[in-house]
Amino acid sequence: MVVDGCHTIIGDRSAINQAIADNRRPRRLFAGFKVGHFTDENAGTGCTVVLPPPGNVTSCDVRGSSPSSRELELLHLDRRLEEVHAVLLTGGSAFGLAAADGVMTWLAERGVGYRTAAAVVPIVPAAVIFDLRAGRASPPGAVAGRAACEAATEEDVATGLVGAGRGATVGKWAGRQHATEGGLGLGNAESGGHQVGALAVVNPVGDVISSEGAVIAGTTAARPSFTGPGSEEVELPANTVLAVVATTASLDKRAVRWLAARGSDGVTVSVRPAHTRYDGDVTFACAAPSRADSPVDLDVLGRLATEAVASAIRQAITR
Amino acid sequence: MVVDGCHTIIGDRSAINQAIADNRRPRRLFAGFKVGHFTDENAGTGCTVVLPPPGNVTSCDVRGSSPSSRELELLHLDRRLEEVHAVLLTGGSAFGLAAADGVMTWLAERGVGYRTAAAVVPIVPAAVIFDLRAGRASPPGAVAGRAACEAATEEDVATGLVGAGRGATVGKWAGRQHATEGGLGLGNAESGGHQVGALAVVNPVGDVISSEGAVIAGTTAARPSFTGPGSEEVELPANTVLAVVATTASLDKRAVRWLAARGSDGVTVSVRPAHTRYDGDVTFACAAPSRADSPVDLDVLGRLATEAVASAIRQAITR
Repeated sequence: MVVDGCHTIIGDRSAINQAIADNRRPRRLFAGFKVGHFTDENAGTGCTVVLPPPGNVTSCDVRGSSPSSRELELLHLDRRLEEVHAVLLTGGSAFGLAAADGVMTWLAERGVGYRTAAAVVPIVPAAVIFDLRAGRASPPGAVAGRAACEAATEEDVATGLVGAGRGATVGKWAGRQHATEGGLGLGNAESGGHQVGALAVVNPVGDVISSEGAVIAGTTAARPSFTGPGSEEVELPANTVLAVVATTASLDKRAVRWLAARGSDGVTVSVRPAHTRYDGDVTFACAAPSRADSPVDLDVLGRLATEAVASAIRQAITR
Repeated sequence: MVVDGCHTIIGDRSAINQAIADNRRPRRLFAGFKVGHFTDENAGTGCTVVLPPPGNVTSCDVRGSSPSSRELELLHLDRRLEEVHAVLLTGGSAFGLAAADGVMTWLAERGVGYRTAAAVVPIVPAAVIFDLRAGRASPPGAVAGRAACEAATEEDVATGLVGAGRGATVGKWAGRQHATEGGLGLGNAESGGHQVGALAVVNPVGDVISSEGAVIAGTTAARPSFTGPGSEEVELPANTVLAVVATTASLDKRAVRWLAARGSDGVTVSVRPAHTRYDGDVTFACAAPSRADSPVDLDVLGRLATEAVASAIRQAITR
């Protein structure tokens, strides 16, 4: 089931919302994957953890200026490690990486991680969005990360202004003051026996657009022109789309890395402008081991990854 | 001043130590750079923070399987960011990344970081060594990271079994049970008006060798053969040399990245075997801005980076 963006004219927000409401939003990321949110309503921020099945092969694709992150190096093809024990997406900019400490201890308490002679050591890649607000800076920390793990569930995963998407905004390309709310969304795509799920945290400089190019959510500037979000952002990118692509397929790390890049394409087709110099985007891809004998068509999975991520980005807005 | 390794025959440890004692060990990493340690004697671990001058250009070179890390992605040439506000080296394996949270808040309290509309956001790359011991796992956390910052000083930087080097060991290639103590060391090298300093945390699979190839510290196995440190380490590398190369020179990010790689060569010449599949090594390079008009000879700096790191690795052992 591919969830399409919208079927109405530009600017008709109520019609857009209605069309999307008619489409059933995904209730989960993917079979076997748990998702948990921590949301801080006061501070307008939060974090989201994805707990994949054991034996997964995980990698990532980083576009543009890169957000602040943790453990991305291990996911690159030069590095031997393949399995991760959680993926954390978090608000709070670089401060939010502290939430990973809560995920680490929660996993270690449950014996989840790499077994060494001395201790079980989990590997928790993480990436952040910049959602700090002057006077309200209370980034997610270890307590938030642990809470997200405690709340993790496979079914009935909440979307919208929750978890890492709580403080997300879109449409900052004509100035940050004209931004619109972003959010967190789920998407999925299916074809020929192959299925791919995606989760996205939508905090880009650009607008979110439909498959026909209509703006679903974006800048509220009356006569917008590209000015960039603000001069202070030249050095530290403060806009991000974070995505997680999930599937069940026996893939090697190189194939998973490629799948992550196809997921990043899902950002390119659903955000405009995408991947600006003020954006630091990351797409994780996580393939759970498959017990099936049927061959995997990686080309199909790639197309589905693009569609699923685009769908998740649009679903984050239309809720 | 290049600190040479040793001038004695293999196995004559007291003579080795004497020779090195005759050479004056560096008292600092480099002018303008502060270094602070936190050492936990009970748990046999610790962390070390390097605070570089503002306006630095920083990058890194990752060899082999990569250790657990934080913010390395921003240091790569694809990414625009150039300046960092601290570099953290820490024990505790992936758990030790929590020490970076303490560094973050300490820096933010002092207004050190990238200025955004909402808050000052520091960037703190970090890398770990695996020094966990069964039953004594108390990895450095936020408190440790803060303490290291509080203790940071430009002069009289301690070396040996301190900070991130407290739990380091060498000579595990014939089995972890035959390991010898490693440590943290400083080195420097100078030529033709160019100077480079280095700090190293020495926790490799291999032995530390002199410039003539004699073993300074290594496996204590009677008749050693390469068995690898242990079968459980195939998945999660548990051996590392972490190095920081420091200099004052107006270099662009590409040149600093290259300098980091020349620092990694310092590992290759002073550790044997080096960069095994069970090692995850990282060399950071940090160039503080120079006010001098004299031209920079990058080729000279590269050779000095190699010598300084090799020197720091040997100094860690000989203290």
